[in-house]
Amino acid sequence: MSSPNPVFIPGPTNIPERLRRAVDVPTHDHRASDFPAFLAALLEGLKAVFQTTRGEIVVFPSSGTGGWEAAVTNTLSPGDRVLAARHGMFSHRWIDLCRRHRLDVQVIEAPWGESVPLDAYAEALAADREHRIKAVLVTHNETATGVRSDVAAVRRTLDDAGHPALLFVDGVSSIGAMDFRMDDWGVDLAVTGSQKGLMLPTGLAIVGVSTKARAAMETAGCPRCYFDMRDMLGTTAGGGYPYTPPVPLLYGLREAVAMLEEEGLDAVFARHRRIAEGVRRAVAAWGLPLCARRPEIGSDSVTAIMVPEGHDADALVRHAYDRYGVSFGGGLGDVAGTLFRIGHLGQMTDVMALSGLATAEMAMADLGYPVTLGSGVAAAQAWYRETAAEAATAPAPAATAAA
Amino acid sequence: MSSPNPVFIPGPTNIPERLRRAVDVPTHDHRASDFPAFLAALLEGLKAVFQTTRGEIVVFPSSGTGGWEAAVTNTLSPGDRVLAARHGMFSHRWIDLCRRHRLDVQVIEAPWGESVPLDAYAEALAADREHRIKAVLVTHNETATGVRSDVAAVRRTLDDAGHPALLFVDGVSSIGAMDFRMDDWGVDLAVTGSQKGLMLPTGLAIVGVSTKARAAMETAGCPRCYFDMRDMLGTTAGGGYPYTPPVPLLYGLREAVAMLEEEGLDAVFARHRRIAEGVRRAVAAWGLPLCARRPEIGSDSVTAIMVPEGHDADALVRHAYDRYGVSFGGGLGDVAGTLFRIGHLGQMTDVMALSGLATAEMAMADLGYPVTLGSGVAAAQAWYRETAAEAATAPAPAATAAA
Amino acid sequence: MSSPNPVFIPGPTNIPERLRRAVDVPTHDHRASDFPAFLAALLEGLKAVFQTTRGEIVVFPSSGTGGWEAAVTNTLSPGDRVLAARHGMFSHRWIDLCRRHRLDVQVIEAPWGESVPLDAYAEALAADREHRIKAVLVTHNETATGVRSDVAAVRRTLDDAGHPALLFVDGVSSIGAMDFRMDDWGVDLAVTGSQKGLMLPTGLAIVGVSTKARAAMETAGCPRCYFDMRDMLGTTAGGGYPYTPPVPLLYGLREAVAMLEEEGLDAVFARHRRIAEGVRRAVAAWGLPLCARRPEIGSDSVTAIMVPEGHDADALVRHAYDRYGVSFGGGLGDVAGTLFRIGHLGQMTDVMALSGLATAEMAMADLGYPVTLGSGVAAAQAWYRETAAEAATAPAPAATAAA
Amino acid sequence: MSSPNPVFIPGPTNIPERLRRAVDVPTHDHRASDFPAFLAALLEGLKAVFQTTRGEIVVFPSSGTGGWEAAVTNTLSPGDRVLAARHGMFSHRWIDLCRRHRLDVQVIEAPWGESVPLDAYAEALAADREHRIKAVLVTHNETATGVRSDVAAVRRTLDDAGHPALLFVDGVSSIGAMDFRMDDWGVDLAVTGSQKGLMLPTGLAIVGVSTKARAAMETAGCPRCYFDMRDMLGTTAGGGYPYTPPVPLLYGLREAVAMLEEEGLDAVFARHRRIAEGVRRAVAAWGLPLCARRPEIGSDSVTAIMVPEGHDADALVRHAYDRYGVSFGGGLGDVAGTLFRIGHLGQMTDVMALSGLATAEMAMADLGYPVTLGSGVAAAQAWYRETAAEAATAPAPAATAAA
Repeated sequence: MSSPNPVFIPGPTNIPERLRRAVDVPTHDHRASDFPAFLAALLEGLKAVFQTTRGEIVVFPSSGTGGWEAAVTNTLSPGDRVLAARHGMFSHRWIDLCRRHRLDVQVIEAPWGESVPLDAYAEALAADREHRIKAVLVTHNETATGVRSDVAAVRRTLDDAGHPALLFVDGVSSIGAMDFRMDDWGVDLAVTGSQKGLMLPTGLAIVGVSTKARAAMETAGCPRCYFDMRDMLGTTAGGGYPYTPPVPLLYGLREAVAMLEEEGLDAVFARHRRIAEGVRRAVAAWGLPLCARRPEIGSDSVTAIMVPEGHDADALVRHAYDRYGVSFGGGLGDVAGTLFRIGHLGQMTDVMALSGLATAEMAMADLGYPVTLGSGVAAAQAWYRETAAEAATAPAPAATAAA
Repeated sequence: MSSPNPVFIPGPTNIPERLRRAVDVPTHDHRASDFPAFLAALLEGLKAVFQTTRGEIVVFPSSGTGGWEAAVTNTLSPGDRVLAARHGMFSHRWIDLCRRHRLDVQVIEAPWGESVPLDAYAEALAADREHRIKAVLVTHNETATGVRSDVAAVRRTLDDAGHPALLFVDGVSSIGAMDFRMDDWGVDLAVTGSQKGLMLPTGLAIVGVSTKARAAMETAGCPRCYFDMRDMLGTTAGGGYPYTPPVPLLYGLREAVAMLEEEGLDAVFARHRRIAEGVRRAVAAWGLPLCARRPEIGSDSVTAIMVPEGHDADALVRHAYDRYGVSFGGGLGDVAGTLFRIGHLGQMTDVMALSGLATAEMAMADLGYPVTLGSGVAAAQAWYRETAAEAATAPAPAATAAA
Repeated sequence: MSSPNPVFIPGPTNIPERLRRAVDVPTHDHRASDFPAFLAALLEGLKAVFQTTRGEIVVFPSSGTGGWEAAVTNTLSPGDRVLAARHGMFSHRWIDLCRRHRLDVQVIEAPWGESVPLDAYAEALAADREHRIKAVLVTHNETATGVRSDVAAVRRTLDDAGHPALLFVDGVSSIGAMDFRMDDWGVDLAVTGSQKGLMLPTGLAIVGVSTKARAAMETAGCPRCYFDMRDMLGTTAGGGYPYTPPVPLLYGLREAVAMLEEEGLDAVFARHRRIAEGVRRAVAAWGLPLCARRPEIGSDSVTAIMVPEGHDADALVRHAYDRYGVSFGGGLGDVAGTLFRIGHLGQMTDVMALSGLATAEMAMADLGYPVTLGSGVAAAQAWYRETAAEAATAPAPAATAAA
Repeated sequence: MSSPNPVFIPGPTNIPERLRRAVDVPTHDHRASDFPAFLAALLEGLKAVFQTTRGEIVVFPSSGTGGWEAAVTNTLSPGDRVLAARHGMFSHRWIDLCRRHRLDVQVIEAPWGESVPLDAYAEALAADREHRIKAVLVTHNETATGVRSDVAAVRRTLDDAGHPALLFVDGVSSIGAMDFRMDDWGVDLAVTGSQKGLMLPTGLAIVGVSTKARAAMETAGCPRCYFDMRDMLGTTAGGGYPYTPPVPLLYGLREAVAMLEEEGLDAVFARHRRIAEGVRRAVAAWGLPLCARRPEIGSDSVTAIMVPEGHDADALVRHAYDRYGVSFGGGLGDVAGTLFRIGHLGQMTDVMALSGLATAEMAMADLGYPVTLGSGVAAAQAWYRETAAEAATAPAPAATAAA
């Protein structure tokens, strides 16, 4: 079930040695006298990752989906309207979650492969003169399609419309990998998970909360307890937790934040962009289209690649795993079978990326795709060579503390 | 923040080496072709731990509190009545959680230090001729007071009353450490966490679900999504998860189940009882009363010890940590300051237990308690010596796979 | 100092997860009652790896060089003549070691890139009518040049000459990776280390000892103590060690032996041959010559590649490390600067090998080598694809115990 | 074979988490461009541990015995006379090693339980007018008897006699645990191992070399190669190794040195003395004599305890392991069966020490020793309590980097 090969799924990502050892610790009492100082420093560090100074951070023991639930149940009431675009599996699921919590979701359908449709958002907000829309949802990086949306533009749309709705952002596969600015973009609730740009095992939902979102908690009527943010903010302010926290993952999170700090967020984003560009050049050399319909919206976390007519992308993903021990992502929902995904966020070097591309080429060739062995690799090599000096000054976050 | 000393808190417990290495793994794709077989085997193994063949198991990425929430929101509707006793901090919290989910909790107050009051339960059930009580809650082991309740007797009470209410059990600090029989006792929803008898880090809520509980999900009206059991049962049946699962902890859970299986559940329970008895004899030698009001309800997971009048138990706990690097549990809620707790579940040898007792003696002496150094240790030594042959045939689950 | 990229040095090799965790253990007392059974099983397992039933195994806490020293000092006396070919850095060093121990080494110079010269050995043995040659040395796999020698043929040469000399083999980079048959080939002393085919960290010299070699110990006059084999054989027979053994590495060694057993030695050798052949095809595609002068003597552990005239191979190795975080081997001794080496023994998948080849291509291109990006990768991909079914039935030894 | 209980053997000692993770690293190329700077810093740090600024350090991949061999073979010639006392198993073995290397050992027999006999040394040196004695051997801490010798006094004896012999010290179980001053005491060769005060797994012999010892290498006639110090000093000066070094252990060694530095050597020594004193008080409470004949020579690393007439100490050690999973040291050589040893060097807290004492009491009681349960524990508790403030300012080196 295990292989020494890296994974190329868009999360959980490859875990750096440094984080594996940060997480692999003997039991420590979360009620001990030194826990509060640890927790305070961790939350402070996370603010920097979210690029917020005004917001607060809560960390739930759950997957990222729990972060979505926390966002909506803590600030909204049953029957509240939320505006959301469906343009991929993860935006679809968030909409579904809202509906299960009895919210009234105004869904804007958009092509899978497109960003959040700004015009449609503007139109909906303009039409909502009574401000029945209480929250606007944006999936910053649609992991299912490899598409980035323009959160800043959604904020401008809200501002232009003079609309008071809260702005919620799913940053699960962007935060810590692609530029995300909670304060600058006026985001009210931003959700991520431990297993993406933060390079840890799954198990933590991390949510940034604006002052406005916090205020909304006072009147929000959705029932909640496990994901109650007031409980969480109240206890973490005192250095505690409302229930037993997963201390090892929290230790890992502190170390992950330290790694991002040491490298510098801008360097982290540039590194992701550079690795992603090599993958995109390889795909171009293969002659395959991206799912992302326009080059400027291509994700730096994951690249979704359309397979040629007559091929089943799921079979490709299975074959690569069974024959070569390499995991790629398959298509989800509407794009199942028509695309496969190469995840390249978190700890990913040129060398690792090339091994993924070489494997994809073998697997495609095995299944009769019209692809020339080595072609994508060569295109990526050319790019990586050309830009490697940059790499040298922005090293992958791989160094272990001890080495 | 770390020490080579064991912890003596009632969870998270000391993690065996074997489990630390089971959890410390490189990223593996949870959508890979070998994941379904792994997951099926894990869930099957967990059934044995819950002593159920008819029930099903769901494993949520959350703390145990999430398991409580899953239990009530998946089977009940707002306004439904539940019957519960409050006799410690954890039964109190479960009641609070129910109320936040708009349930109508009929609370029976009982002394902190007593078990669930069977007579009062019987009376309430008898009085409920219209069967408005939809669920009866039992905290099998009150971690805050070190008190065990008789779940089988509650089942008999329900049966005697011919009452159809569901039976929910908080087994967080009992399952995997003390005898718990889901099928025999007719438990409908049984909740535990990864960080107690299963000896893992915090991060998994594990819930056993009876056929009757599953049927109740079809009509339950509480809103839910993250903790939706039908989603979970539906996807795990096919080898998947409704969202990203925490694979490393699931690997650890499989190994923990293997450890319990190898030792044998009866031997596991006997081992806990034996270690606990040594601690109780030490406490008797100190001349201090237990919080548990009757000997037969003393927990085999944790021992709660009343401190002498005029002493602050919290100060004792802080002192033991700050001076000797040893964590004990403090008092919670109504018993804050009046008791301290020695957790002794999971991986705990005679030798480890004695070191905890010796430390408690030093800390008590430092703070002026009327306790004779070595007295509790000697009492426990005598018991451990006397029963050590039994120990030899029921070894602590400490052996690493490789050694 | 650390990178998530694999290393491509001919040892220490990439350590499988399973072995890292076998080695990472708490302290265990080597004088405990369960140590003898462990040690006996370990030594028995090693015999299978050496393909010997008649021989014995000793394991010294040292690097492989210690094994060379143990071999000669335990069986020879100052002034004794040994016959050895110098055809690479490691054969050179063994000769030097013999001389420091006052042995009279009859050196046959051979080209670096050639095997042990059988004719010259035959000639020397034939000329030695008085049997002054007490031992014949063979470097089974010259790690410095990537050349395999024919140990069976040397044995036949000895037999044909009716010469009673002992046959010593340096199998440091062959045993556990390439077919080595101690009994069939009549090897008297065979030396390997933990950090090559056995995939562990450096720290153990493992020596196979024939009955004849053991007899020679009785009269051998070289002073020795730390590396005294009679002490070692005497104490290990009783389950002990003459001094403190490195228990964690011994645990790792047992696990490494188990991995080789589980895969099967033949499958292990076939896997190494297959991976190596892909690398050789890549080198051919680059248009670069191997150091190995004939195809049939190319090593399956390491490939030594001559760089084009006017290029400094050491600069290439440095560049690959500094820019891409990948370690290759440089040239040693007479071939310093003229070749670089790709180590591919131990845990090495197709995917890992391709990443090494892709990196070598980038590094060569950076330094102006006339090499086409992707060319070697494509040649290796074609080979790996073609033979991957075989791979599927002979999986790389990567599976961790827990996964 | 493994237990969560600490070991109480005088090495290998309990490995701190921080060191386990420093050692558990992926393969790193020891010929990479960043290795020299690492190695230089490591050797510099070791000088501080040896309390030398004028000396040099060599680190061999071997057990401590290899360090003894390196010391004598690099500086002496066959037939050279060395002066040594035999007063325990380890001094006995060093004498044996010298003889195997054809040295002429002038042995002074002393009682096992006594220090090096200064008067006899003085007498021998005074009698040696021709300065045939080339080296004087001292076992700083006789691990077999728990006895410390006065190295400074031996230096004075040499100086008083105006004798030019080299001074060699076995500091295997003292360096890093008890005050050892290479420069102040004029030690020419000082030997230790990784598995004692340095708290690592076995596998490194570390030797401090004075200028005078280095000069002696030029004329030393003992054959040597693996342990050749000139090779080692020559290559490490350039950042390399004469053969493959055990990189993981070297990483661990750097971290161990960092731990000692952070705590401060004086605090390290005080901590060992304090823990040892608690053990000695427990032994006194048991009414058992130490092997050390005088209080002032009792070792701070290990305490050797004479068992009552008619008891077999080896049976006690076996029983403690088999029944309670705790390792103590047995008697070696002349004292086999008559004493057992409690090792308390390296990572050892009050709490751990008390668990060892409690276990020893149970085991002794099981075997009919006239010992009162809890008596030794109480004596040690009283001492640890009394001195714990001191402990608080000199914490055990247990903190992990990440926690």
